[in-house]
Amino acid sequence: MNKSKIIGIVGGVGPFAGVDLAEKILNQTHARRDQDHVPFMLYSLPQKIPDRSKFILEHAKENPAQAVYEIIIQMEAAGASVIGIPCNTMHAPAIFDVLNEKLARSKSKVILLHMIEEVVGFIKRYYPHAQSIGYLSTSGTYRSGVYRTTLEENNYQVIEPDSSWQNKIHDSIYHPEFGIKAFSKPVKNKAKNQLFESIEHLKDKGAQAVILGCTEIAFAISQNQLLSVPLIDATKVLARVLIEKTYPDQLKTYSADNS
Amino acid sequence: MNKSKIIGIVGGVGPFAGVDLAEKILNQTHARRDQDHVPFMLYSLPQKIPDRSKFILEHAKENPAQAVYEIIIQMEAAGASVIGIPCNTMHAPAIFDVLNEKLARSKSKVILLHMIEEVVGFIKRYYPHAQSIGYLSTSGTYRSGVYRTTLEENNYQVIEPDSSWQNKIHDSIYHPEFGIKAFSKPVKNKAKNQLFESIEHLKDKGAQAVILGCTEIAFAISQNQLLSVPLIDATKVLARVLIEKTYPDQLKTYSADNS
Repeated sequence: MNKSKIIGIVGGVGPFAGVDLAEKILNQTHARRDQDHVPFMLYSLPQKIPDRSKFILEHAKENPAQAVYEIIIQMEAAGASVIGIPCNTMHAPAIFDVLNEKLARSKSKVILLHMIEEVVGFIKRYYPHAQSIGYLSTSGTYRSGVYRTTLEENNYQVIEPDSSWQNKIHDSIYHPEFGIKAFSKPVKNKAKNQLFESIEHLKDKGAQAVILGCTEIAFAISQNQLLSVPLIDATKVLARVLIEKTYPDQLKTYSADNS
Repeated sequence: MNKSKIIGIVGGVGPFAGVDLAEKILNQTHARRDQDHVPFMLYSLPQKIPDRSKFILEHAKENPAQAVYEIIIQMEAAGASVIGIPCNTMHAPAIFDVLNEKLARSKSKVILLHMIEEVVGFIKRYYPHAQSIGYLSTSGTYRSGVYRTTLEENNYQVIEPDSSWQNKIHDSIYHPEFGIKAFSKPVKNKAKNQLFESIEHLKDKGAQAVILGCTEIAFAISQNQLLSVPLIDATKVLARVLIEKTYPDQLKTYSADNS
């Protein structure tokens, strides 16, 4: 097969999420030898990209869109044509819309996937009977309303954590003493337990499926550990759509428990 | 800290090894937030790079050096200055020397690390009392003699598998029905068991430490599973040296059991 299309991964947001997306692309690809795998490039330049949640929650001055725009343009020049950003908070309109405008203005030809829209489309396709959908995310994503809006536009009932739970979820990711960004290998039990309890909280509120809407959360939690409600790993969805848009014949059949 | 240096990873040889090296760089870095992590780029373009073992064992016509040379030049243009290739067989003189010549001729300024020399230097530093060193590798690496020569030049006694064992080791990596290149998540038990038995074989022959000299082997085996002899993960060594050459202050203290 002619393998001229190259997937571009904007890494560094966070660094482990970039690597996780790359690994999920490999795991979701049919391949028997090295040469069968789909081509991709991953730019992990975290020092260039300001924190996304901070921009939204604390109204920090520098919009992360500018750095990510520069990275995408650099990857396009190097040959990438379909781009994924494994950071949910980057898809908040205050960031993502600005990024899209910059790309349009520069006449970039890349296809930039919108992870959150892809996740909602995925739920429609694979969980057609679910009507009430919960999500776990950073407070930046939560405050931006990007999951809420996208789910509502698709006629879902949105199940959100109460605000004390939202704080716990955010801390599980960002807390300097136990959060996943500081401790990812292994994840601290406190972070893991708070996330499990948050899923139970959403289930109690009626969620029929729960989106792991922050890339770090999938490091702590997998479907294998929790069978009571379907979990949707946003990074895995993004991996699958990146393959589908470049080498659809090589995409594996979906299974909730492979990673 | 000024983070202007960028690590370049030649991925695709194989694809999982590229991602594994990236993850090991993250795991070996002191960091509390996304922005603390060291910048890197990973080009995983496996369709461009012919099989390395095939080139050495079957005298295939196309030297993988050319494709890897082109990828390094492209990464250098994109800003990478220190390069690692997580494929032991690429370091066979028939490939690596040609690659180095091409880089010298093009006046490239990158620092290209030699994984095998780094591994031997690492053993000297962290296992100063070991004198007899065994290694597991593809038959391409084995036939090329690159570990043997480098170890002997450093006054080690080299413990190699008998030829029937060498075939089993190669099959654990390449066999289409159970090899790690075809089945890496999870690794098949047959591959795992053959590798464990090969380590015992080397230990019985007197090895005081065993190099996991094929990047795929570290997916199947870790120090935690086998405490009777120290295992040296070549990919982890390469990750550490890449950090040491770019942001030495951020390198974690070495521990055999963290990945």
